[in-house]
Amino acid sequence: MKAVVLEKKGVINVREVPDTPAPAAGELTIAPHTVGVCGSDLHYYTHGRVGKYVVEQPMILGHEASGTVVAVGSGVEGFEVGDRVAMEPGIPDMNSRASKLGMYNVDPAVRFFATPPVDGCLCETVNHPAAFTYKLPDNVSYGEGALLEPTAVGMWAATKAGIKPGDVCVVTGSGTVGMLTASCALAGGASKVIVSDVSSIKLDIIGKIPGIVPVDLTKEDLVERVREETGGWGADVIFECSGAPKAYETFFKLVAPGGTAVLVGIPVDPVSIDITELQATEVRIENVFRYANVYQKAIDLVASGKLNLKPFITDTYAMADAKAAFDRMDEGRPGDIKLQITVDRD
Amino acid sequence: MKAVVLEKKGVINVREVPDTPAPAAGELTIAPHTVGVCGSDLHYYTHGRVGKYVVEQPMILGHEASGTVVAVGSGVEGFEVGDRVAMEPGIPDMNSRASKLGMYNVDPAVRFFATPPVDGCLCETVNHPAAFTYKLPDNVSYGEGALLEPTAVGMWAATKAGIKPGDVCVVTGSGTVGMLTASCALAGGASKVIVSDVSSIKLDIIGKIPGIVPVDLTKEDLVERVREETGGWGADVIFECSGAPKAYETFFKLVAPGGTAVLVGIPVDPVSIDITELQATEVRIENVFRYANVYQKAIDLVASGKLNLKPFITDTYAMADAKAAFDRMDEGRPGDIKLQITVDRD
Amino acid sequence: MKAVVLEKKGVINVREVPDTPAPAAGELTIAPHTVGVCGSDLHYYTHGRVGKYVVEQPMILGHEASGTVVAVGSGVEGFEVGDRVAMEPGIPDMNSRASKLGMYNVDPAVRFFATPPVDGCLCETVNHPAAFTYKLPDNVSYGEGALLEPTAVGMWAATKAGIKPGDVCVVTGSGTVGMLTASCALAGGASKVIVSDVSSIKLDIIGKIPGIVPVDLTKEDLVERVREETGGWGADVIFECSGAPKAYETFFKLVAPGGTAVLVGIPVDPVSIDITELQATEVRIENVFRYANVYQKAIDLVASGKLNLKPFITDTYAMADAKAAFDRMDEGRPGDIKLQITVDRD
Amino acid sequence: MKAVVLEKKGVINVREVPDTPAPAAGELTIAPHTVGVCGSDLHYYTHGRVGKYVVEQPMILGHEASGTVVAVGSGVEGFEVGDRVAMEPGIPDMNSRASKLGMYNVDPAVRFFATPPVDGCLCETVNHPAAFTYKLPDNVSYGEGALLEPTAVGMWAATKAGIKPGDVCVVTGSGTVGMLTASCALAGGASKVIVSDVSSIKLDIIGKIPGIVPVDLTKEDLVERVREETGGWGADVIFECSGAPKAYETFFKLVAPGGTAVLVGIPVDPVSIDITELQATEVRIENVFRYANVYQKAIDLVASGKLNLKPFITDTYAMADAKAAFDRMDEGRPGDIKLQITVDRD
Repeated sequence: MKAVVLEKKGVINVREVPDTPAPAAGELTIAPHTVGVCGSDLHYYTHGRVGKYVVEQPMILGHEASGTVVAVGSGVEGFEVGDRVAMEPGIPDMNSRASKLGMYNVDPAVRFFATPPVDGCLCETVNHPAAFTYKLPDNVSYGEGALLEPTAVGMWAATKAGIKPGDVCVVTGSGTVGMLTASCALAGGASKVIVSDVSSIKLDIIGKIPGIVPVDLTKEDLVERVREETGGWGADVIFECSGAPKAYETFFKLVAPGGTAVLVGIPVDPVSIDITELQATEVRIENVFRYANVYQKAIDLVASGKLNLKPFITDTYAMADAKAAFDRMDEGRPGDIKLQITVDRD
Repeated sequence: MKAVVLEKKGVINVREVPDTPAPAAGELTIAPHTVGVCGSDLHYYTHGRVGKYVVEQPMILGHEASGTVVAVGSGVEGFEVGDRVAMEPGIPDMNSRASKLGMYNVDPAVRFFATPPVDGCLCETVNHPAAFTYKLPDNVSYGEGALLEPTAVGMWAATKAGIKPGDVCVVTGSGTVGMLTASCALAGGASKVIVSDVSSIKLDIIGKIPGIVPVDLTKEDLVERVREETGGWGADVIFECSGAPKAYETFFKLVAPGGTAVLVGIPVDPVSIDITELQATEVRIENVFRYANVYQKAIDLVASGKLNLKPFITDTYAMADAKAAFDRMDEGRPGDIKLQITVDRD
Repeated sequence: MKAVVLEKKGVINVREVPDTPAPAAGELTIAPHTVGVCGSDLHYYTHGRVGKYVVEQPMILGHEASGTVVAVGSGVEGFEVGDRVAMEPGIPDMNSRASKLGMYNVDPAVRFFATPPVDGCLCETVNHPAAFTYKLPDNVSYGEGALLEPTAVGMWAATKAGIKPGDVCVVTGSGTVGMLTASCALAGGASKVIVSDVSSIKLDIIGKIPGIVPVDLTKEDLVERVREETGGWGADVIFECSGAPKAYETFFKLVAPGGTAVLVGIPVDPVSIDITELQATEVRIENVFRYANVYQKAIDLVASGKLNLKPFITDTYAMADAKAAFDRMDEGRPGDIKLQITVDRD
Repeated sequence: MKAVVLEKKGVINVREVPDTPAPAAGELTIAPHTVGVCGSDLHYYTHGRVGKYVVEQPMILGHEASGTVVAVGSGVEGFEVGDRVAMEPGIPDMNSRASKLGMYNVDPAVRFFATPPVDGCLCETVNHPAAFTYKLPDNVSYGEGALLEPTAVGMWAATKAGIKPGDVCVVTGSGTVGMLTASCALAGGASKVIVSDVSSIKLDIIGKIPGIVPVDLTKEDLVERVREETGGWGADVIFECSGAPKAYETFFKLVAPGGTAVLVGIPVDPVSIDITELQATEVRIENVFRYANVYQKAIDLVASGKLNLKPFITDTYAMADAKAAFDRMDEGRPGDIKLQITVDRD
């Protein structure tokens, strides 16, 4: 079959790879239809590694995928050939202590698509456990289905936040994850979400969604604006999605007494935190590592129309042009949110 | 000043009563603009009592009110004459053990408008603690402001439910509180809310809201429908809003494993419950008594457009016609949701 | 190997059965040392069924077991031959929706020892998943290890209760599960636990534990006593462990505003509940079905001396006398709490 | 009456001050019996200020107090002259937004004993709201009653931690608050509490309590020891009580996946935190500012014998020798935990 292969740092080929074997018990064989291009894919392409994970042999890229069931393994119930589906890309050891507690996302033994040496799913077919595969309703497109993966991060952040109906939220950082987190917070019960960034283009995109209050950090003081928007009380929930150490200088000043902070962005270096500031409001801090148990709920929100993912799909490439998609992402055009690739199957 | 007075069971007069004194420290004098007609008001009118509360002397009716600040007591900050406001009608002893815990709604010493011998607020002016008064933004009307009181019940139910983003909910009973609870659950994070009732008129009204799935119990089996809508899993959160003992026959069959049931409706008689059915799903049951700390959040949701209260205001009467409003409510027209009365001030 | 076999209703034999095969991947072969006699075992013996589970072929009894590892399957880490262990008897499908959420106890596909047609572990050796096997520290005896199974129910009840440090608790019903729940509530943070029953013998046993306040229902009014013990406020957490419909007549009158009720006992028939009484305190109700993720924590409490299980082991029988143990349990001597059987291996 | 007055930085006199007026409505007049010496008292003595609070006029010291009711104000129920009581020293505005939510401790308007310009209670009589006064059972001494104030910090930390029965905890820092937090965590459900410090004297004191595992940081690696004590999983709850920036270098490495960190100690300077380390375990972080709603529960635990405060009262001084007590605290003898002063009333 054909696959988009990262041969080594800097070299992507669309080429033949061995066919997928028959599905094992509990597995489905799925033909990916649309696969999103993610920052981690890009990082393997441009740097040959992400943290401790190093590309030491050719690896199929891609982990944000929707597709169609083409074969059903033994013991699988509830799926049949032809079902349109999305795949949750991390497969934990379900017998680990973390998984038994319902926190399968922090199981250290998780296998994740396109994380060396595990292949990704930007290819004609792939086997995947039925337990981590979710059916797409007719009114959810393959593009939206593939976008569920980064959406799941926003869903998990909004879920861990424990948003109460009508809460005022803040999201610092309007990148892809920031936009999706803001959208999930709104769909998840917030009355309004204040989103800050330094990019006016990104704020224009997210600001079009009713309920979003964009704040351009080059023009406005965020602490002051949050105070105004909340009658001086502060925001009930604040999400850090920029990963920028600078954001932490004012981040915890945004929260109301007894509020919640959710740390989503991933700062490369340690940040400096004034503990007495945390104690003054008794802010609760939740941390996000990927997601657990949110795919079905994300699908339900998209299907019901409460969560609109369409504005976040910037462009779609054919599989043959996969390299162009990665190169464009590497360019980092400010108006680009998500680029996707469709898989044509012979 | 003029007031709508329940002289005794069955007798309502709009007549002169003594003027409101100057506001005490911490209080505002408020001129009510719009006051909703509530079932408890009606019950005092038609039965002369609600439970242990008996009308033994003339009492001003009304407790669902918005209005305008006309005087500000000493020590009050953040309000000025002319502010448009809504009043939370129950005033607890804030030094009680329950209030210190944040549960001021279950403080037994609470004073509540129009609960004998406490007068209501269907009159020209009334004094009210600033701590239980909330400013209305320009885009929230007096009618919506008055409707915040029953909305607060729905908000509290949705808050105690702990709805997670994308949860599927059920509301049994599409009366005023059922409709408001369903609306709050949707605004509060549900992907969809299945609402059941025996009245097709009521289901037509609530069914127009996107995200509501109306189920006519005269035509459909609710347990079966919930199973279909949730892929056999059950609903994440179920709200009992009918107060009908019959609803309890199937109510707990609607919930998913580990889900939540919120009991809002008030059954007059004890109901029969199969404890083993509760244990099989380990359902968590939350109970609702009025509300606490939700007025501001309800206002924020109405102001942001996420919670639309307009469909629930059926008709508005002038103060002089107050008796007609109560009589119409007593009629119980099936398409009536909320009747309101506007106060004209001399 | 030898096993204690329930041939059919009323007939128990200690006899040869086929040997245990080698452990599969992820499994251990364990030689049970001590096995408790449980009410469900007894019910199969005396009635031939428990609910929908019917004894249709000979079945090995027993599900409360400790023992020694005698073989280690492939892929198992952290265990070696000779390890002293306890077995959690229910094996869920870890890929089910409930298990992924951390609620493996409510997974309907759970396989449970000695639940037809699944054999129990009152025999010389048995295979068991390592993920549901727990090592016993040197200072936890095999008898205590076997008692962990019913203890886990009390641990789960105390865990779901969300006991806050210093909470006052009530346990209605001082049977085995009631005593263990009271002990777990004390170890789990309660300042004192009021335990009610009609049996003075049982109250004498549990009343010896510091922090337990026994209340003999034949002599004292429980509602009044709880009021006295809590300064009129009510208990923070109440556990129903009797399963007696009569207990429900006053049960919810015991709880403080905003408190929690945990339903552990299993009433055979539906009970009558006054919903308005639940609403007046806004009691939160939690339901218990077996347990999840508590074995290790129970072991830690026993090992640290905070949870003393020794008073609850009434007597121990040799495997050859297994029938006598079951017959004694059927007698229902009031001072009997837990009878256990030790397995002698040839 | 006589009082211990801080005239200005460095000058303490025991001298006459004006008598206490009659209690206002809702207040009690209380004759303090025992008053603890606290770090904030000392800091006002040695530095003349604590943060923004500056001693600009003579101020009565002391805020950790027990005593006897000598007069009862109007409207007070449940107290009578002669009652032995403890006083919660912070009096919030109960009508503030934070107080209505049950978080009266983070109300910025709180009045706190011995915080300039508010006088303390190291004097013959003082007026105090009944709502923040708690009766002491006969078996709780005045000394223990006075110690409830710092104990309340530990109780609040243990409460916010959400300890589950059997959790393994760590406390970094074995000062007064660290010892009390460790004791409250044990009484509050932990199976064992690992306590680290660099002072062997302090570890000897706290290490005598069953369930405490002392770790001398000058001899042992805490991360390694926690790993051993928890089978490699990490601690369920970790409490930072040292306030030392150095403690943060390894603090978050101690916690288990999905565990909780509670920040109690108050670092003077910002600390450096690796956010990716927080995300890897999805640790929940709770922050502590004083306490709310825990006095009664602390009293219940002391009365039941589950919380033993006696080891923490190092020495007691007569009022006339108050200055000696403050000077000894300033010395900082390593074996000193809490010094107290008894008030002799003329």
